[in-house]
Amino acid sequence: MVGPEIERLIQLLARLPGLGPRSARRVALRLLERRDSLMVPLAQALTEAATRLHPCRRCGNFDTTDPCALCADPRRDDSLLCVVEDVAALWAMERTGGFTGHYLVLGGVLSALEGTGPDDLGLGRLFERVDAGGLAEVILALPATVDGQTTAHYLAEQLAGRSVTVSGLAQGVPIGGDLDHLDDGTIIAALRARRQV
Amino acid sequence: MVGPEIERLIQLLARLPGLGPRSARRVALRLLERRDSLMVPLAQALTEAATRLHPCRRCGNFDTTDPCALCADPRRDDSLLCVVEDVAALWAMERTGGFTGHYLVLGGVLSALEGTGPDDLGLGRLFERVDAGGLAEVILALPATVDGQTTAHYLAEQLAGRSVTVSGLAQGVPIGGDLDHLDDGTIIAALRARRQV
Repeated sequence: MVGPEIERLIQLLARLPGLGPRSARRVALRLLERRDSLMVPLAQALTEAATRLHPCRRCGNFDTTDPCALCADPRRDDSLLCVVEDVAALWAMERTGGFTGHYLVLGGVLSALEGTGPDDLGLGRLFERVDAGGLAEVILALPATVDGQTTAHYLAEQLAGRSVTVSGLAQGVPIGGDLDHLDDGTIIAALRARRQV
Repeated sequence: MVGPEIERLIQLLARLPGLGPRSARRVALRLLERRDSLMVPLAQALTEAATRLHPCRRCGNFDTTDPCALCADPRRDDSLLCVVEDVAALWAMERTGGFTGHYLVLGGVLSALEGTGPDDLGLGRLFERVDAGGLAEVILALPATVDGQTTAHYLAEQLAGRSVTVSGLAQGVPIGGDLDHLDDGTIIAALRARRQV
């Protein structure tokens, strides 16, 4: 019924995050229907990205240059290092336009469940950068999950002996957040970190 | 922040059905993280599909051959023609393994809202195949929507004068369907089409 070329395409598409077998089939059909306007350009964009983009050896971001444009930008503050879980988090920070320091992508967080230990993360790179000097502050912008906060505590301990300030993102009510729809943990965290107005 | 290569990739991915800007970014990152195991194979599969697959001029299905494997299969029943809205519907029919005749993909249904008239669909191909003779029955396997059923009525009218039986899929309670969760229209249709047991 469905030929091997389409079957292979659907199988690969089904491995993308958020897609299952059914939606992968729908995507494959859309691609076949829009061959010249979508399938061919996407194939070219993927080939070009696979050829030209590589992880930056300094921070872990993806770019055509190594070090990447962020690491090489002389306007950025060399004294600030923001530690993030993955490139998605780095992009999210950058989209805000509110951070002008440098980044380090850990490539994950410590996780007993997934068997991710300190050796599996890019911690050596972090300690090297701290020990190289010039850093005033390391900001641990890790997810507000159990694993994320465990990782933040572990890193804070490891960095305690070195001459650098270690900070974490504030926890509290998100902008526009309605108390009635927030989880208890967030409300308690916001209450504990309350500030005089 | 994000380079033009990644930006272009995200923009193309966001045009796939079911993906928006945010999920397209997540997909792009997963692809970059799995360059050799996912991005490169997907680029190759897309290039190969774009090069080798074409719509069958007889039925509208996608295949490497024209006529496609379904149209060329001598074991299939030449007297049955199943009219479907799109290739997705053709694949859905084929997955059941319950139909052994031939297909015709309309490429849409009549829609006043979307401005799709009879001339926009592959109706000429349908009438030609009916007039060529050899068909005993045309099965209108069109969606059970207003537009789908309007199209089925239109086609039934157009085919009325020709020596062919025209049928449509039965409407009723789906297998495993719980009355409490079914819409009123389905229940009424199932009631009207009730059969003695």
